Amino acid sequence: MKAYADRTLAELLEELKQVQARYDALKGMGMSLNMARGKPGTEQLDLNRPMMDILKSDSDYTCDGIDVRNYGNLEGLPACQRLFAEILGVKPENIFVGGSASLTLMYDVISKCYTHGRGLGCEPWCRLEKVRWLCPAPGYDRHFSISESFGMEMVTIPMTPQGPDMDLVEELIRDPSVKGMWCVPKYSNPDGIVYSDETVRRIAAMKPAAPDFLLMWDNAYCVHEFASEYRPFPDILSACAENGNADMVFEFASTSKITFPGAGVSCFACSENNMARMKKLLNVQMISYNKVNQLLHVRYLKDKEGVLALMRRHAEILGPKFKCVLESLEKEIAPVGIATWEKPVGGYFVSVNTMPGIAMATWQLCKDAGLTLTKAGATYPYGKDPKDSNMRIAPSLPPVEQLEKAMEIYCVSMKLAALRKLTAV
Amino acid sequence: MKAYADRTLAELLEELKQVQARYDALKGMGMSLNMARGKPGTEQLDLNRPMMDILKSDSDYTCDGIDVRNYGNLEGLPACQRLFAEILGVKPENIFVGGSASLTLMYDVISKCYTHGRGLGCEPWCRLEKVRWLCPAPGYDRHFSISESFGMEMVTIPMTPQGPDMDLVEELIRDPSVKGMWCVPKYSNPDGIVYSDETVRRIAAMKPAAPDFLLMWDNAYCVHEFASEYRPFPDILSACAENGNADMVFEFASTSKITFPGAGVSCFACSENNMARMKKLLNVQMISYNKVNQLLHVRYLKDKEGVLALMRRHAEILGPKFKCVLESLEKEIAPVGIATWEKPVGGYFVSVNTMPGIAMATWQLCKDAGLTLTKAGATYPYGKDPKDSNMRIAPSLPPVEQLEKAMEIYCVSMKLAALRKLTAV
Repeated sequence: MKAYADRTLAELLEELKQVQARYDALKGMGMSLNMARGKPGTEQLDLNRPMMDILKSDSDYTCDGIDVRNYGNLEGLPACQRLFAEILGVKPENIFVGGSASLTLMYDVISKCYTHGRGLGCEPWCRLEKVRWLCPAPGYDRHFSISESFGMEMVTIPMTPQGPDMDLVEELIRDPSVKGMWCVPKYSNPDGIVYSDETVRRIAAMKPAAPDFLLMWDNAYCVHEFASEYRPFPDILSACAENGNADMVFEFASTSKITFPGAGVSCFACSENNMARMKKLLNVQMISYNKVNQLLHVRYLKDKEGVLALMRRHAEILGPKFKCVLESLEKEIAPVGIATWEKPVGGYFVSVNTMPGIAMATWQLCKDAGLTLTKAGATYPYGKDPKDSNMRIAPSLPPVEQLEKAMEIYCVSMKLAALRKLTAV
Repeated sequence: MKAYADRTLAELLEELKQVQARYDALKGMGMSLNMARGKPGTEQLDLNRPMMDILKSDSDYTCDGIDVRNYGNLEGLPACQRLFAEILGVKPENIFVGGSASLTLMYDVISKCYTHGRGLGCEPWCRLEKVRWLCPAPGYDRHFSISESFGMEMVTIPMTPQGPDMDLVEELIRDPSVKGMWCVPKYSNPDGIVYSDETVRRIAAMKPAAPDFLLMWDNAYCVHEFASEYRPFPDILSACAENGNADMVFEFASTSKITFPGAGVSCFACSENNMARMKKLLNVQMISYNKVNQLLHVRYLKDKEGVLALMRRHAEILGPKFKCVLESLEKEIAPVGIATWEKPVGGYFVSVNTMPGIAMATWQLCKDAGLTLTKAGATYPYGKDPKDSNMRIAPSLPPVEQLEKAMEIYCVSMKLAALRKLTAV
């Protein structure tokens, strides 16, 4: 089969006719499928049903000498701090346990930079003319929404196979109005890239002109392999500390894709200084997060090995879904050469880069045919992909039987969009 | 027995000797009692043990067609919106379900006023020279801490038996830099006062000069009778709406003192306009709060009548504790006339007003003898009670057997502080 780029106009018009017919047939099936958000599927949620038998009416609700049902312990149950500390490779006192969402912790850290400042002798950001923020892209739309909500000027940093383009980062941080950067260092959202050791080294060694530069290290997929053995990752807290940058970083994690999305526990990890400051500010905002749920997670997950064992069971479910997506792309798209894509072994997404100018059209065709994907452009700041090329596929939610159909719609839609563009005179 | 005010110096000195001896004896017993925070006692927590049997491994986790274990539904489970709506007397669409803490929701509403503004065509408060805030006092220290954290200039509004002094409030709101007021309208913290219908009417009918004036209606004790039948309360949302002030108010509630403190569910209630704005802003901050815990509470509490039935059981435990406190005060303090106090029938506190100038000394004497109370001054903005008189007693935590001893320490300490002051030459 010839790549579309190598075909004549006549060949392309003939292909267009056939692909249009396939598309119309698929559309006519009236399907409704969602591959837009990284939502675990029902089978994955059901893995955790046994968790709900752990706390009963006659259970012991004390842990570390604390009755978890009552007020107290702002930073969380010590046993939960220990669990997250083991997972992230930091010390328990570096851990602050949050509610069910790391997103909320991230938002809160940034919000306080605006209202109260970073506490490093610097002004609250609400007093500044301009705050610029580095956004490796393709990236996570909810990160970008936070930046946009606070009026930051977002600067796209192209992703490379090793992580963000560090030459560009090191150049840009010489501007003191550049106040931070979003990173998803392991199985980045959406590319599934693992930052190389060299990238992590350069990030930890940054010397930003802004003394209150904030490295937001969202380790959302730190244990989320689906086609690989567990891969250890660097401890960003000590890497930064070794470079005199202990207070530069906040790291985030959650059990949303381990136990229940929106009903698990989350944390941030940071230096001693940052922790003292955050506790002082957070003490005004809350008494403590839900310690009953923290106890539940501690008794269920037990320790890092318990978490990894559970993640292997998640992988048994997710692996075939990703395999289906990648095989469909290999079979339908690779031969016609209209896109490239990452082949992740962890995380929640497949990132596809179509030929420029057809991502939005592909997205719309999918939508019209009953397949909802993440909106084209969402993986870039301001929802604007300058190349109209990147598309994020989230295979986790649909059952694997529906995935083949979904991928058929996707591939046919992409071909249709490509052919329309290539044959437009 | 003569009131201290009617005794001679010689009589007071004799009394001082005796009271000092009692104090030293009590101190020598080396007790450790806490009546500082409104924390439910263990017996109350144990009332809710059956709740933990409701959700099991084989339970149905769908509600209103939603799998509560997965992401989604920013404003909360519809069934939980309905539950809070019934309790507060509003419509489900007026309800936003939060996490375990109404305090956090209150903080968030105010924080967004600072970072994003109220959305009524007014500037974010971070851009203003000055924000003034009305603080009925005695009041709740955690409210005042929020105001102080954001740099508000707090203005004390004396409490009357009907609620805040509305003459003063109506005068002060003519200043457009006065941006809001804290209210605990039913069983106010700490006085236990229920705002009169006239007070509520005047509050709802306020015409603040600030178009973005924010009435923070913390209905923390809306169903928290312990020595009375349930007492219905006005619906502040419709009262404000009837006065053209629909967007002025945010109302708050939580199940912290119904089920588990720090592990229940909370909500705010507000107008349609406010809800649309908050959802837009909160959508950036979270995906949703913990819907598994919301489902648990819906299935356990069932409806308003279910909540009231549970609260009657709480009252069986709390009633005797308050009775002990009030009887001790009546027996030891009333005859010597060195304090007055409210006699609440609901809420979590007894508010005592000592003769001026001895509250802090009393607090310290208690502390030294092993009884921790809320710090004197805490019930006023900036922790400064101008009369050094108000003291907040929280009877809920200790078992009733310990309360008698705790009240003995309290009464003896107060007498000692009073006598030292009265005999100081």
